Amino acid sequence: MQKVCLVLGAGAGIGGTVGRRFAQAGYHAVLCRRSDEQGLKRMVAAIEEEGGAATGRLLNAAEDGVIEDLVADVEATVGPIGVVLFNLGAQIGNRSLVDTSYKAFELGWRLATFALFRVASSVLPLMEERGGGTLLVTSATAAMRGNAGQHSHAAAMGGRRMLCQTLNAEYAARNIHVAHVLIDGAVDAPDTLGKMLGAENFAKLRAARGKEHDGLMLPEHMAETYFHLAHQHRSAWTHELDLRAYSDLAWWNHAPG
Amino acid sequence: MQKVCLVLGAGAGIGGTVGRRFAQAGYHAVLCRRSDEQGLKRMVAAIEEEGGAATGRLLNAAEDGVIEDLVADVEATVGPIGVVLFNLGAQIGNRSLVDTSYKAFELGWRLATFALFRVASSVLPLMEERGGGTLLVTSATAAMRGNAGQHSHAAAMGGRRMLCQTLNAEYAARNIHVAHVLIDGAVDAPDTLGKMLGAENFAKLRAARGKEHDGLMLPEHMAETYFHLAHQHRSAWTHELDLRAYSDLAWWNHAPG
Amino acid sequence: MQKVCLVLGAGAGIGGTVGRRFAQAGYHAVLCRRSDEQGLKRMVAAIEEEGGAATGRLLNAAEDGVIEDLVADVEATVGPIGVVLFNLGAQIGNRSLVDTSYKAFELGWRLATFALFRVASSVLPLMEERGGGTLLVTSATAAMRGNAGQHSHAAAMGGRRMLCQTLNAEYAARNIHVAHVLIDGAVDAPDTLGKMLGAENFAKLRAARGKEHDGLMLPEHMAETYFHLAHQHRSAWTHELDLRAYSDLAWWNHAPG
Amino acid sequence: MQKVCLVLGAGAGIGGTVGRRFAQAGYHAVLCRRSDEQGLKRMVAAIEEEGGAATGRLLNAAEDGVIEDLVADVEATVGPIGVVLFNLGAQIGNRSLVDTSYKAFELGWRLATFALFRVASSVLPLMEERGGGTLLVTSATAAMRGNAGQHSHAAAMGGRRMLCQTLNAEYAARNIHVAHVLIDGAVDAPDTLGKMLGAENFAKLRAARGKEHDGLMLPEHMAETYFHLAHQHRSAWTHELDLRAYSDLAWWNHAPG
Repeated sequence: MQKVCLVLGAGAGIGGTVGRRFAQAGYHAVLCRRSDEQGLKRMVAAIEEEGGAATGRLLNAAEDGVIEDLVADVEATVGPIGVVLFNLGAQIGNRSLVDTSYKAFELGWRLATFALFRVASSVLPLMEERGGGTLLVTSATAAMRGNAGQHSHAAAMGGRRMLCQTLNAEYAARNIHVAHVLIDGAVDAPDTLGKMLGAENFAKLRAARGKEHDGLMLPEHMAETYFHLAHQHRSAWTHELDLRAYSDLAWWNHAPG
Repeated sequence: MQKVCLVLGAGAGIGGTVGRRFAQAGYHAVLCRRSDEQGLKRMVAAIEEEGGAATGRLLNAAEDGVIEDLVADVEATVGPIGVVLFNLGAQIGNRSLVDTSYKAFELGWRLATFALFRVASSVLPLMEERGGGTLLVTSATAAMRGNAGQHSHAAAMGGRRMLCQTLNAEYAARNIHVAHVLIDGAVDAPDTLGKMLGAENFAKLRAARGKEHDGLMLPEHMAETYFHLAHQHRSAWTHELDLRAYSDLAWWNHAPG
Repeated sequence: MQKVCLVLGAGAGIGGTVGRRFAQAGYHAVLCRRSDEQGLKRMVAAIEEEGGAATGRLLNAAEDGVIEDLVADVEATVGPIGVVLFNLGAQIGNRSLVDTSYKAFELGWRLATFALFRVASSVLPLMEERGGGTLLVTSATAAMRGNAGQHSHAAAMGGRRMLCQTLNAEYAARNIHVAHVLIDGAVDAPDTLGKMLGAENFAKLRAARGKEHDGLMLPEHMAETYFHLAHQHRSAWTHELDLRAYSDLAWWNHAPG
Repeated sequence: MQKVCLVLGAGAGIGGTVGRRFAQAGYHAVLCRRSDEQGLKRMVAAIEEEGGAATGRLLNAAEDGVIEDLVADVEATVGPIGVVLFNLGAQIGNRSLVDTSYKAFELGWRLATFALFRVASSVLPLMEERGGGTLLVTSATAAMRGNAGQHSHAAAMGGRRMLCQTLNAEYAARNIHVAHVLIDGAVDAPDTLGKMLGAENFAKLRAARGKEHDGLMLPEHMAETYFHLAHQHRSAWTHELDLRAYSDLAWWNHAPG
């Protein structure tokens, strides 16, 4: 039976592209996202045109039971999940404290922290029974430091990072590889950055820093590192790494004054 | 009008002792805890016997509206809150992933992360109007790294630490001092450690490492550092520090093999 | 016999001011610096006018044997060293890699890392024999992250920070308190910042951010935290803390774009 | 002309194995080590038997001019250096402060920090002229925290890590990829771990945790990640990652008490 790579947060940026990379290597990619059924169908079709196997699911991971049902259903109808990419974001842009509602703060946690806990609770015991597996978690520099305006996002990502460490501490020796991938820069992703900036500004950014200049992070190249992580030999696993474009300052650096 | 020091999580360890330290310096200490009305009354009485001012409140901070009502009520009936000590814990001991319920995971976040967000949302705008204030946050090394069995606690504390950073990033320049205090060791606290270990084991630990040996962290001495933080001049504020007993390894150290 | 506080790097900023703070509390301050005999005499005189005890030494800590002889001489002629403040800096401004000579790189290490090792090797065994002591180490955010142009400084400070941790790991349980103080901002220090900027620019900076605005770190207030660290009870020691002016961004933060 | 991969510290563990991996991909591997000419010849022969190109150099990188001459000579006689693996170690085992001589402390810095600065000063400007290159730096968890007994090693590695950051900050945007690889565990390396433990103990460790169990880090698998790093697209570079065996605790974790 084909190995399954389950992607939560499969937009046209990191999620869908990583799914496609795994499909190219023989995995059945299960691509899950909340909206844009047409976009989802296009991603599945693109994989199938390359001779790969993919399934698309439209779902809201924040809802009770949705993740749990998804895992059970994929295991029953597609196959055993060998790799999960947890790629749900919770960035809502910069908001001051008084403009960050309790609801927004809680939603950040539900999507970025609690949903990961639910995924892990649902999948890791199954992987353990089968003798191993991989959980790749996309994260952000907001997991490392909290900037102004990032109350919801940073609190959620800080929780996500610590959860990745507790999962790794419990499951690594059981042959389950948990990796925390710090994305430290702007990704060339129409479904997230594109929507946040608006079509016109995104087009400008792409013209200034995009493909020709490699100054935006290009998902097809990021996917190579995700794939590498999932295929490291267990005598040499990486738990955490950062990714940024060559032209970007690392989050810890300030430009000389 | 007397300055108010509001303590959330005022047990007989750090919380109550820090409250008493501020009362000794002329603050009105408002001590809030969830249970043990007798213990709360004893703490208030002890402060009053020293000539200090204190009020006790029994409340469940996890409940909707309780923190918000508390802040409004204290401001109206006791006085303007100058210092908050956020000292709510969320440690539930080591539990494997399969033994950590969704409810336990969520409760950790509600107490350790979301309650801090609610406190900050309620108090910081008031402090800002008055030109300044101090928010002291007790934290744990689970905010820095996630050990096995600490899924709920570490995720909650990791979120707490990032939230302290986003609050500091937004409010420091408005003269509000946010400090994150990493407690890296066992505190001589009957209400928390004592209950977790049970009476007999706690007595043994105290005999082996307690007051005579200074090998448990002693709240009356920890309180001096909390007090110092709250009275640093704004040209030299500390955002984060660690505290441990001299005889303990720092969390980042391993003993030589 | 009077306790001695030995200060290496006793300019008119942190070093001299911390020495004075300890002298006010009854320590004999031994103030050591490389140059400016007149400035050194003024600092000693200022302490003596307040009724304190102080001695000034002009010396080059980078030279072979100088630190070792100093420690032996102070112990023999002034008294047992109870507190050391290691305050030697190695900031040479921003220099590109090709403009950083081997000599400059090595000198950074000699002053910022190796001199601390020499101090520790000379003093800590004496403190251990006497049952305890304190080593306060001024450090910089260059110990936490390396910015462009900081090859020499960051490498030296990164080494300093790790050395503070190894010293703490070996000596804390022997009642010797090692504290690493991260200075994350511009200090109102004519002998260092003043010289780096030049008289005119330093005057401008002081006018814009200085005493009236508390936007430069004021040594007399920083000294309170150094003094507090040295007098923490051993059941609650701090190994590392940061200090910055309320109006400064923490090193890990970036301003919203 | 063939691309050159220059390896400093080419023992039979990480260094030689990574060199071989690059040779398999068409690089000319220049393997440099201080001693064991026979071992060096065997490594070169093994590469050549696979159809690869390799050169061995016996040299002491700590000596004045040796690194500088090596770089000039390799560029002149072998070809332009495209990748450097800096793999010099400075671990001397656990030594108390009083047993760590000034000479040992300085040697740690010379090998682990200053030699990297010399390599970077010699190679990066050449890479910049040619439009790009890669500097891979093997590092250790001693760069992240200082354990007891590690005064020399931790200070040197802490400096190494910060230097990697300052090099990255200056050179990344000039298309030179600097990566800091944290080795967090015991490597199956006869030339380093083997010598430190002695033949008998190393044999026992290999029997208990070695190849069959993947409980020692296996250089041939680590090499895949080094190779991946050197071939990441510049829109998605990693500056830092950790590597450990699946069965090892991460350095930040403590086992449940």
